[in-house]
Amino acid sequence: MILGDGKTPEQVAAIAREMASRVDRFLITRAGPSLFEAVKAEVDEALYHSTARVISLNRRKRARLKDGIVLITGGTADLPVAEEAAVTCELMGQRPERIYDVGVAGLHRLLDHLGSLQKANVIIAIAGMEGALPGVVGGLVSAPVVAVPTSVGYGVGVQGLGALMTMLNTCSQGVSVVNIDNGFGAGYLASIINQGHK
Amino acid sequence: MILGDGKTPEQVAAIAREMASRVDRFLITRAGPSLFEAVKAEVDEALYHSTARVISLNRRKRARLKDGIVLITGGTADLPVAEEAAVTCELMGQRPERIYDVGVAGLHRLLDHLGSLQKANVIIAIAGMEGALPGVVGGLVSAPVVAVPTSVGYGVGVQGLGALMTMLNTCSQGVSVVNIDNGFGAGYLASIINQGHK
Amino acid sequence: MILGDGKTPEQVAAIAREMASRVDRFLITRAGPSLFEAVKAEVDEALYHSTARVISLNRRKRARLKDGIVLITGGTADLPVAEEAAVTCELMGQRPERIYDVGVAGLHRLLDHLGSLQKANVIIAIAGMEGALPGVVGGLVSAPVVAVPTSVGYGVGVQGLGALMTMLNTCSQGVSVVNIDNGFGAGYLASIINQGHK
Amino acid sequence: MILGDGKTPEQVAAIAREMASRVDRFLITRAGPSLFEAVKAEVDEALYHSTARVISLNRRKRARLKDGIVLITGGTADLPVAEEAAVTCELMGQRPERIYDVGVAGLHRLLDHLGSLQKANVIIAIAGMEGALPGVVGGLVSAPVVAVPTSVGYGVGVQGLGALMTMLNTCSQGVSVVNIDNGFGAGYLASIINQGHK
Amino acid sequence: MILGDGKTPEQVAAIAREMASRVDRFLITRAGPSLFEAVKAEVDEALYHSTARVISLNRRKRARLKDGIVLITGGTADLPVAEEAAVTCELMGQRPERIYDVGVAGLHRLLDHLGSLQKANVIIAIAGMEGALPGVVGGLVSAPVVAVPTSVGYGVGVQGLGALMTMLNTCSQGVSVVNIDNGFGAGYLASIINQGHK
Amino acid sequence: MILGDGKTPEQVAAIAREMASRVDRFLITRAGPSLFEAVKAEVDEALYHSTARVISLNRRKRARLKDGIVLITGGTADLPVAEEAAVTCELMGQRPERIYDVGVAGLHRLLDHLGSLQKANVIIAIAGMEGALPGVVGGLVSAPVVAVPTSVGYGVGVQGLGALMTMLNTCSQGVSVVNIDNGFGAGYLASIINQGHK
Amino acid sequence: MILGDGKTPEQVAAIAREMASRVDRFLITRAGPSLFEAVKAEVDEALYHSTARVISLNRRKRARLKDGIVLITGGTADLPVAEEAAVTCELMGQRPERIYDVGVAGLHRLLDHLGSLQKANVIIAIAGMEGALPGVVGGLVSAPVVAVPTSVGYGVGVQGLGALMTMLNTCSQGVSVVNIDNGFGAGYLASIINQGHK
Amino acid sequence: MILGDGKTPEQVAAIAREMASRVDRFLITRAGPSLFEAVKAEVDEALYHSTARVISLNRRKRARLKDGIVLITGGTADLPVAEEAAVTCELMGQRPERIYDVGVAGLHRLLDHLGSLQKANVIIAIAGMEGALPGVVGGLVSAPVVAVPTSVGYGVGVQGLGALMTMLNTCSQGVSVVNIDNGFGAGYLASIINQGHK
Repeated sequence: MILGDGKTPEQVAAIAREMASRVDRFLITRAGPSLFEAVKAEVDEALYHSTARVISLNRRKRARLKDGIVLITGGTADLPVAEEAAVTCELMGQRPERIYDVGVAGLHRLLDHLGSLQKANVIIAIAGMEGALPGVVGGLVSAPVVAVPTSVGYGVGVQGLGALMTMLNTCSQGVSVVNIDNGFGAGYLASIINQGHK
Repeated sequence: MILGDGKTPEQVAAIAREMASRVDRFLITRAGPSLFEAVKAEVDEALYHSTARVISLNRRKRARLKDGIVLITGGTADLPVAEEAAVTCELMGQRPERIYDVGVAGLHRLLDHLGSLQKANVIIAIAGMEGALPGVVGGLVSAPVVAVPTSVGYGVGVQGLGALMTMLNTCSQGVSVVNIDNGFGAGYLASIINQGHK
Repeated sequence: MILGDGKTPEQVAAIAREMASRVDRFLITRAGPSLFEAVKAEVDEALYHSTARVISLNRRKRARLKDGIVLITGGTADLPVAEEAAVTCELMGQRPERIYDVGVAGLHRLLDHLGSLQKANVIIAIAGMEGALPGVVGGLVSAPVVAVPTSVGYGVGVQGLGALMTMLNTCSQGVSVVNIDNGFGAGYLASIINQGHK
Repeated sequence: MILGDGKTPEQVAAIAREMASRVDRFLITRAGPSLFEAVKAEVDEALYHSTARVISLNRRKRARLKDGIVLITGGTADLPVAEEAAVTCELMGQRPERIYDVGVAGLHRLLDHLGSLQKANVIIAIAGMEGALPGVVGGLVSAPVVAVPTSVGYGVGVQGLGALMTMLNTCSQGVSVVNIDNGFGAGYLASIINQGHK
Repeated sequence: MILGDGKTPEQVAAIAREMASRVDRFLITRAGPSLFEAVKAEVDEALYHSTARVISLNRRKRARLKDGIVLITGGTADLPVAEEAAVTCELMGQRPERIYDVGVAGLHRLLDHLGSLQKANVIIAIAGMEGALPGVVGGLVSAPVVAVPTSVGYGVGVQGLGALMTMLNTCSQGVSVVNIDNGFGAGYLASIINQGHK
Repeated sequence: MILGDGKTPEQVAAIAREMASRVDRFLITRAGPSLFEAVKAEVDEALYHSTARVISLNRRKRARLKDGIVLITGGTADLPVAEEAAVTCELMGQRPERIYDVGVAGLHRLLDHLGSLQKANVIIAIAGMEGALPGVVGGLVSAPVVAVPTSVGYGVGVQGLGALMTMLNTCSQGVSVVNIDNGFGAGYLASIINQGHK
Repeated sequence: MILGDGKTPEQVAAIAREMASRVDRFLITRAGPSLFEAVKAEVDEALYHSTARVISLNRRKRARLKDGIVLITGGTADLPVAEEAAVTCELMGQRPERIYDVGVAGLHRLLDHLGSLQKANVIIAIAGMEGALPGVVGGLVSAPVVAVPTSVGYGVGVQGLGALMTMLNTCSQGVSVVNIDNGFGAGYLASIINQGHK
Repeated sequence: MILGDGKTPEQVAAIAREMASRVDRFLITRAGPSLFEAVKAEVDEALYHSTARVISLNRRKRARLKDGIVLITGGTADLPVAEEAAVTCELMGQRPERIYDVGVAGLHRLLDHLGSLQKANVIIAIAGMEGALPGVVGGLVSAPVVAVPTSVGYGVGVQGLGALMTMLNTCSQGVSVVNIDNGFGAGYLASIINQGHK
């Protein structure tokens, strides 16, 4: 994985070319369209996922993707982080089920999906603002919940700090937290948990 | 109202005596048993509410208490703050319904009380740790929700800061927040809202 | 209510169209002129309130608006948040009285409106910088005060954090707080309190 | 699970008795010796783990414990949190391997255990001070790493905040974080991951 | 001036004896009764001001004290800081007028003293909790206002941080701030301003 | 005084015109060139001070300016704040002596001006980064020192917070602090202190 | 040394010209290309180091550069800070060995350079994100380690605060820390330590 | 080195005995008298340094101690940290010159020692409160300065955070910082720098 932020397009493109000659898949996160162009010029097989802002390369033969991961978000604005997680899961051989826009301010939307949630091997729960979604979900299921705070919000919780604190303080069991907006990290972790699962 | 913290027992007792000669009810919060003894020596009618850690005086003829306030808490450790709020409501002529220990980590306990919640004129929602209770309740009712973060918890949310941020960041509508552990403030506010209610 | 921030114009316009086919009123906050154009293209009846930066739709027959809410601000720079609150009140059937630019640094301006303040059923007090307005007002009236910190200011209080802390720490009774710049939340809360009022 | 902090011994003992009549195992964390005495008086089968400061009840027939969890700590002062995690794992049917005192300031001590680490299904990595252990371990293994910051330290990192930030910021993949000192949470999460493992 | 905190009684007593042989007045702040005993044993003329928790020595012939400083506080709990300031002023040849317990939650109590306030050469305004007093006073007078936040309060403003931020963010002119609980600093500053005054 | 930030040019210009018809001097801070144009169109006598980013109006007959204020800065980057203070002093009838670029990292530059400093009635000390200048100066003089932290710096002290904390924590006597970058406030305060001086 | 930030190009160019007439070498940090043009126009011998964003002047006869400093970084994004440090070292007569991109998430890359690290007189260790590199290196060598946190990262560690805290909290001995992104400071310090070395 | 905090006396004594059988010198910091008794019972040669709160063992033949380190403090309350540093230096074969109580609020006391300071190979500068001492010293000498913030102070700088920020933000060159109260770390670092010095 390469973090697109904080490097010049030239640096990223050079790293991408070097990696493409050595490994059979990679992922570049926080990548804008112009970064993709620079990478595409070096690695023609690279694909761009615009909502996720991710560039991927995958030369592996498509094995059957594994079910078991459920990916939920609180709101529409959490989509880019959610898709970064989803694309990561797919690159790692998983087929995540996406359940979007089920924040706790409208509990019934979440409860409508209780069946899917309770069958999951592992859940990725993504939320900004108050960040209560992972804790509520954690109380409803017995599978591990990977919580991702997003930098959605304003005022006192700006930059996702409020959501992060909520998630770390949850009373629900089986919940752990990754860095703010770290969709890749959550997707990677959920994938290795699901991969090891019976 | 007198805040017991940060004053000597002598100061509090003197203020209590002076008030007892001038008004017909008062409340002293954050009061330990020894503070009560000092006050009792000056104002014999004073009562002590030990869980709430509150001293009260009420010489008003007991009018019929008004229904309409529902008071809910996330956990057992929130009890002192909840009782401070409840005693305040009672002193102000309200009869709050107490629903304790219905935190969001066990959603069904909360949903069991949906009927009471949806009939309330105003709800006081008290929680420490992640502090998600007021936001979840706010999404279930159309009445105003007074949110009280408590200093229950440990780690990153120590002293209630985490709960406070969650509550301020809630996406649910009709929720407002008072200071950490401010049971009196919540009880007072809920009482004047309910008093004005049809 | 839809928060305009953190979504693309396409997403907001799509949500607006979908809602317009299902409900008879909505509100989009934090909306710039270009967002309005995107929404207008989908929902022709939508109106734009430029100071408040709010888009509204209201197909309800205009019932008689209810008096009882007073809306005060500390300074001129608090206007956008105040108007977001005022537009919200109006959409919810209230007619708020606006008293602007009465910050505590010039106490006489505030005291000139004491009559209006003391007749109110509920007060929305909006201030940035030191944020002392709600506390001072809370000491002058017996109605509930909804305090809104604004992100006006600079230096140590940047982004409204200073005002927020002041408001949560107030000694005045009957004051509760919503998130920084959350004009909508304050307007909504004041409206349901006033709606329930005798 | 019951958090011993913030409740009176009477409350905890009452909850313990009630639970003992309903479930066949429980755990009380943050429990001092005097709390244990109060619980023991009500629930005679209860056991006390003094380093972990945990009271447990386990009436389940001892099935064969499952291997796969490795539990590592940075220093001696992290022991109470580590043992809280270990006792939790054991109550949940796991047999964690304990590797203590392998902080990154003496890298060779950690590398001596590389074999154990690379065979684990899931690793619990506990550290205070700089909190770099989980990140370094995460780079050496492909299993999930549950990171636990501890409140060990002084100065700028007091109360574990420094360790928490380090862990959330790690570049290593497969690492997620629970609240400061939350040994129970880590043990629980590792147990359900290992339980689901092939 | 000697800060009593953070030194042993032996160190303070030794410093006091050494100073008493060299200068004709000194002040020891944050001094408990046992510290006074240690100092008294070395410097017999030393006096103890128990509310202020200050030890003073003053061998200067009592010149006529100068009027012009007014010292106001928000509440009863601010008394120790206020008296530390007052004793400092007196040692420096000033006669401060004390106006206590005039917090902004009860504005009329403050306005009752408008005459005294507007005649002052310099005002020391001391408040905890929301800390709005200096800003309100600053709007009523044209003299310099020295603002002292106190560590009175609880919740989000604990340790006086909330009051400090309020005071730094004030819109009123002529207000400056010293450290939390720094009664000595305020008394010293007000004294040199008043000393230079016509 | 009008704070230019957070208002539209139209609002500022309207306020300026209204004030120009009512008072004989005003000051608009944080004003860019385009804001000046808008004001100039309404109030032709207005002047622009570009380094200070201040617009002023002064119709008072020029009385003899009063000496006694010394204004010092740590570095070149503190100039805009210093000039905002200086212009304020001048508008209020003072003639401040400017001593710029005498930060504590080169102590001799500061000590070269010891004569001027020790003759001052009041000193304005402006510094960013570590913010040690006011404390060092406070130890060298017996006059009041108004400390102004500036938002100059980077890393851990970004936005002036580091300088602010240094200044509030100073051991030197006679130092008080205004908000970060608040040149106007410091100039105003120094002017009223000097005005009252013998 | 001149910090380019927070000054206008004209100010920097003027300072540069003045210095060029007085000293035989200088360094301007945080300098963009346009700033270089302004300086070049005044001081023709000035050189620009684009990755480091540093302008240098060096008229000293090139003495033999001294070995002994090793400069390591965690990732590619730390390069600008690293080069600022390296250029500083060179200007001060040192020849630093550069070992880049050896972050702790891939421990083997770091251990490959163990020989160079253990021969160094002083090490500059630069890292963003979790900032664990200096602590790990400190445990491997007996020379002083100058730690530089960089503002690389996102989420909870944004602006380098997380890395800074990690470095200050390290258990390794011989590590000290400079401000975030302060490559110049680290280069200067390492140079004077190495200069004094046998 | 062993950190005494956060371990039981039994643990520390056991570690001490184990180390005494393996190495010829050690140091235990943050050690109270009762901890010393526990260690003394196991390691009879151990010595106690009461001001420094340090237990040491040193069986090395006393080589001639090396000059070159100067150790300065701002105030009397910084003594324990200073002595922890000094004892560390001595154990490592250095003879530090102690210059205590030379804080920047009384500049002349510092300047009286200019000769010693300018001859030093390395300086340890220890200060609490505003923490300006290392920066001022850094501007006076060309040797490396190891800055140690102490947890001396109150109000906004409580626990040494203010001093830490000041030191990291210093404009002086050659200054680096260790954790708050980390006298051992500073002593160790200064010793290895001086050891390597010509």
